[in-house]
Amino acid sequence: MNAEIIAVGTEILLGQISNTNAAYLSEQLAALGINVYWQTVVGDNRQRLSQAVQTAEGRSDLVITIGGLGPTDDDLTKEVVADYLKVDLVPNEMAAEKIAAYQKRTGKMLTTNNAKQALMLKGARPLANLNGYAVGDFYANPDGADFVLLPGPPREFKKMVDSALIPILQEQSVNPQLLSSKVMRFFGIGESQLVADLADLIAQQTNPTIAPYAKPAEVTLRITASGSSIREANQLIDEIVSQILARDGDYFYGYGDDNSLAAVVVKDLVDQHLTITAAESLTAGEFQSTLGDVPGVSAVFPGGFVTYANSAKERLLSIPPEIVDQYGVVSETVAIWMAKMAKEKMGTDVAVSFTGVAGPDELEGHSAGTVWIGMAYQNREPQAFLYQFNNGRQQIRDRSVLTGLDLIRREIKKA
Amino acid sequence: MNAEIIAVGTEILLGQISNTNAAYLSEQLAALGINVYWQTVVGDNRQRLSQAVQTAEGRSDLVITIGGLGPTDDDLTKEVVADYLKVDLVPNEMAAEKIAAYQKRTGKMLTTNNAKQALMLKGARPLANLNGYAVGDFYANPDGADFVLLPGPPREFKKMVDSALIPILQEQSVNPQLLSSKVMRFFGIGESQLVADLADLIAQQTNPTIAPYAKPAEVTLRITASGSSIREANQLIDEIVSQILARDGDYFYGYGDDNSLAAVVVKDLVDQHLTITAAESLTAGEFQSTLGDVPGVSAVFPGGFVTYANSAKERLLSIPPEIVDQYGVVSETVAIWMAKMAKEKMGTDVAVSFTGVAGPDELEGHSAGTVWIGMAYQNREPQAFLYQFNNGRQQIRDRSVLTGLDLIRREIKKA
Repeated sequence: MNAEIIAVGTEILLGQISNTNAAYLSEQLAALGINVYWQTVVGDNRQRLSQAVQTAEGRSDLVITIGGLGPTDDDLTKEVVADYLKVDLVPNEMAAEKIAAYQKRTGKMLTTNNAKQALMLKGARPLANLNGYAVGDFYANPDGADFVLLPGPPREFKKMVDSALIPILQEQSVNPQLLSSKVMRFFGIGESQLVADLADLIAQQTNPTIAPYAKPAEVTLRITASGSSIREANQLIDEIVSQILARDGDYFYGYGDDNSLAAVVVKDLVDQHLTITAAESLTAGEFQSTLGDVPGVSAVFPGGFVTYANSAKERLLSIPPEIVDQYGVVSETVAIWMAKMAKEKMGTDVAVSFTGVAGPDELEGHSAGTVWIGMAYQNREPQAFLYQFNNGRQQIRDRSVLTGLDLIRREIKKA
Repeated sequence: MNAEIIAVGTEILLGQISNTNAAYLSEQLAALGINVYWQTVVGDNRQRLSQAVQTAEGRSDLVITIGGLGPTDDDLTKEVVADYLKVDLVPNEMAAEKIAAYQKRTGKMLTTNNAKQALMLKGARPLANLNGYAVGDFYANPDGADFVLLPGPPREFKKMVDSALIPILQEQSVNPQLLSSKVMRFFGIGESQLVADLADLIAQQTNPTIAPYAKPAEVTLRITASGSSIREANQLIDEIVSQILARDGDYFYGYGDDNSLAAVVVKDLVDQHLTITAAESLTAGEFQSTLGDVPGVSAVFPGGFVTYANSAKERLLSIPPEIVDQYGVVSETVAIWMAKMAKEKMGTDVAVSFTGVAGPDELEGHSAGTVWIGMAYQNREPQAFLYQFNNGRQQIRDRSVLTGLDLIRREIKKA
């Protein structure tokens, strides 16, 4: 099945927002085995929207519009599609009741415009809007491409895709196979290297499929399989996952779309009853802030130190100024001192430290991107590791933080 | 002039990346007064790319492709456009030399594929690629729409747009007016309020134009004017800027695309010779990390404290546990203690503190989003301010950080 996505909204054509909805929907459709050959963006303009609908209907099996279902005069999608398909618009009872209830609760008048949000293509299946008032449509077209109408606000759009559209597409599938997918996350290996390592698996992929995706500083693989049951699909996934882990398991750190290195490290620390602190120079609190993103981190992270200037290394961590003078602030010795003293002062099991050159200027003769990461872990001998990162100040700091997290993850695994 | 953007890349149709290039380009074109009526995305497929090019050429004055200029077999854009326009592809000397120099430097063979990146439409003006090897094209078409070919990797794309394409478009403009624009940045006022305050100015806009743009937690206005000289355009901008400042100057914090509250605060601190530290509970280092993003911050920021747990408030800041017990950790008193003690321990002129509930769970009977921000500023009486933020853990922390920065900005202005 070939689908085409039409995003409707002048704000996209003005560059005020990126078309992230199309990206999300495309990813979901790909996972369902539906090919998306075209994405189009058109403004809130009746004539051009008509033209886009007609073009799409002529070359696709499924046309999905995003946006233009709201209450204002600019919101034209339903009218344009109804005109094109020559079907009427009729009120959807549940959506109309929801709007009426809102009116009652807030005391606002139910204007014609608001009522418009409850209108649907006659004969379409409603797609409930759990985060808003505009109802969506799934219109099985006896004479041509099927039409799906979705709202534009991302919260409404995403919820409707997940809870209403995907189940219908699965059910409508010509070959009613059930789909399952699993995301594998890797750190410390580039996309091209990972793809090269798995070249034969990727080349022969049919079921499961393997989709690599490079994010800043990490790579994910989405493994998607179909089967007559979820269990059967999952077995296919597990087999390929084992093969991938046998090759690149050293870089694999966890599963799941919403996972992160920080979440994995916090979970590992909680599981092992290990507390952690940090002393940060070039990262200036970013490592600790990244830990702070993870709900539940308070069980293992009491706090720590930002020691940007040398004076702070002395004041907060009691590092003798002679040490900094002798070895330089960007040095193995200072990284080890920072980790050791942070651990001691905070009374934690683990401490990590960051000292280096964020740039843009060099420091003490070291170029931007030179970073030492120190690690003090229970009674093990404190160590520090040297890295050379690049691509500018923020990337150097981000990369330092992720590398620190990965060092901890590996250190915990040694236990 | 009407432009159409064709982004070429299967990775966009698979939802692996958002089409952020199209958003950036659309914004630039809007600022130049060029209408974008269509954006299309098509995969690395010869037949569909041909179809997209043909459709675009039939309805637009300017067709801009993004992507598909690279060395691999998938990169088809040049060939397809050359076929459509019936012009040859010829090597661009400078681009070819750059590739040859790269080969010499790295010892890699110059493959046919690499050489392909130096090819251009015969008769086109080259658009230099300062961040890569694929040269871009500006082809003034005597028989139809003009064509622009740009590379897909965002770093290469953006640089080429800024440094090569925009100057040509300005110069090619039918009405050779010169354009100038200025971005005004606001914090603490919502987009809808700002737009309401400026409704009459926005309604009557012709030259300059006023384009509001809501980003997470801040709003910007891009004021764009044209004139027979940049000076004339700037005068028109200055007049409208004065009117806007008279109405909402209290929320205005700075000019410029690459500006930020953190950059403004760091600049103010440097100008006033004021040093700063922080004690962070719920923000867990994010405030200090945000300062750390600004090059040159080391002159005013020695470091600070992450005091996530109560034990850290005692250990690092010597806050008596009775104070926390008596008032609760989410309290005006504790926020003031944190700021006061951080300032004292670090020996800075200014200290800011954050204590509150990041969520998802409530704390001490306070709901997620309850945040106290404390401020100790030279010899002024330390104060703390209460906020109620919402929308989830990360947004609560982000908003706290920005609000802390804005408090400092306002405190400095009082001096």
